[in-house]
Amino acid sequence: MTIRLAIVGLGKIATDQHLPALDANRDFTLVATVDPRLSTDVNATPATFDSLDALIESGLAVDAISLAVPPQRRHGLAARALANGWHVMLEKPPGITLSEVHDLQARARTHGTTIYASWHSRHAPGVEAARDWLADKRITRVAIDWREDVTVFHPGQAWIWQPGGLGVFDPGINALSIVTTILPVPFSLQKARLDVPENCDTPIAAELSFVTADDAPMSAIMDFRHTGEPAWNIHIGTEAGELVLSEGGAVMTIDDETRIAEPKDEYAGVYARFARLIGDAESDVDLSPFQHVADAFLLGDRRRVAAFHE
Amino acid sequence: MTIRLAIVGLGKIATDQHLPALDANRDFTLVATVDPRLSTDVNATPATFDSLDALIESGLAVDAISLAVPPQRRHGLAARALANGWHVMLEKPPGITLSEVHDLQARARTHGTTIYASWHSRHAPGVEAARDWLADKRITRVAIDWREDVTVFHPGQAWIWQPGGLGVFDPGINALSIVTTILPVPFSLQKARLDVPENCDTPIAAELSFVTADDAPMSAIMDFRHTGEPAWNIHIGTEAGELVLSEGGAVMTIDDETRIAEPKDEYAGVYARFARLIGDAESDVDLSPFQHVADAFLLGDRRRVAAFHE
Repeated sequence: MTIRLAIVGLGKIATDQHLPALDANRDFTLVATVDPRLSTDVNATPATFDSLDALIESGLAVDAISLAVPPQRRHGLAARALANGWHVMLEKPPGITLSEVHDLQARARTHGTTIYASWHSRHAPGVEAARDWLADKRITRVAIDWREDVTVFHPGQAWIWQPGGLGVFDPGINALSIVTTILPVPFSLQKARLDVPENCDTPIAAELSFVTADDAPMSAIMDFRHTGEPAWNIHIGTEAGELVLSEGGAVMTIDDETRIAEPKDEYAGVYARFARLIGDAESDVDLSPFQHVADAFLLGDRRRVAAFHE
Repeated sequence: MTIRLAIVGLGKIATDQHLPALDANRDFTLVATVDPRLSTDVNATPATFDSLDALIESGLAVDAISLAVPPQRRHGLAARALANGWHVMLEKPPGITLSEVHDLQARARTHGTTIYASWHSRHAPGVEAARDWLADKRITRVAIDWREDVTVFHPGQAWIWQPGGLGVFDPGINALSIVTTILPVPFSLQKARLDVPENCDTPIAAELSFVTADDAPMSAIMDFRHTGEPAWNIHIGTEAGELVLSEGGAVMTIDDETRIAEPKDEYAGVYARFARLIGDAESDVDLSPFQHVADAFLLGDRRRVAAFHE
């Protein structure tokens, strides 16, 4: 029997990624979509609802929900769904504070349901191979270069600039979700500069210096003011050569030799993992990428920069 | 046999609190003090060193160190001491990022030594009794009021205003260390306003709104601009009456009846706990107070306020 899923939030990411991935997935049946811009119609296929409350009140049979709403709204909706006995998948980042995600984890345990804090970039084609290759290498240097034009990739997403929206860390956390899974050693932030537009609450750019537990330097540049082709690259120097993940993890080279270059289909991996977690009655809430962002906000030296107007 | 202890950092907190507590403690022998303002003299009693390196090079027999230096310097010194096989006690806050404290925890595990991230306010006279009384109560409301004059309580401590120094959260984390240990439910931040002087990197005041996992509201006001008598109070409403911890936890009342009012001797408790952890070959690193501060920096709405000049 397939898992009856409702998707909550029909914005850009749900339309571009979640719906096509679900369409190709045999583990899930999409039974409902929920968004304030929809009318409630239980007879539509899938059924549509203008709120999670309307879905709950309808009594429609649902096993799991996928939350593709801005992070500021995740906790309230997730808590209600878990209390209803539903499994919950969270888009990244899983919340606006570390504590509220721990709280959701505890609620899932109480209700005996699965919670999955997903990190879609971890399902990019080169990530698993990169982790395998790096597993027995000594890392000497890491450089993250993550720059994209916010007006192209996040059009009209005002929530990014509000408290909890993370600013440039909304894409930057994708790079952090990759390095936290592929590096064989942990790392910590030593210094951070955050550029915050004078009309925004969150940074438009960041420069970070980390150090790994065995003293290799690691840098990250994140910038939303970039124009043209985006840069989504991670360079990892090792004593046995240099590994580069580019195009957000779609391409992996070792010493300039291409080992993997595949079209990205990250959400297929995300939903496959969610189905497996539900099947195994397990949860997966890895907060390490989010913790590094919290560290950047905690330690960051803030510089006020020009106002941002889309 | 007593534990041979070196104290690293002879600033205000070491002089006012650590040294008198160690003087009255039979588990430890103070064998060395370390501070850049000291000259290295291995024949002094206790021996004096101008740096941790000088102590290590001296070959003096040491079992444990207590780090009473600004948080920006804790990680480097702690890592060296742990690598030397020494037990380490950290003053609060245990570091400048969550990740670097996790790193120290992992190093202590590797080296088979004890690490203790201490929270001195948890050893205030009323704290244990408050936890016991609250254990079976339903909390309806929590209000933290934590205001002190920074020029009186932190004279000349420029590190407080630099990245990693936490600003008003340096005292405020004491309140958070108390509520995280006495409340029977966890809580998460919902909203925060941080007032940051235009010439500083860290807040001089904060207003925080939390909610407990069972929906009780919790507020915290922290302010360094306060003058006169400090306010270090926590009001906790329950269905069975109101508990108030005042004077930083020295006084506990229930429905205005004084149950505990004792002089504070927090560092006696801190060192007793460190000795017990060493004896039991255990560590204690509870990051929950620090995590709430990281959440405040992550979610906080920053307001630039007047420059601070001491």
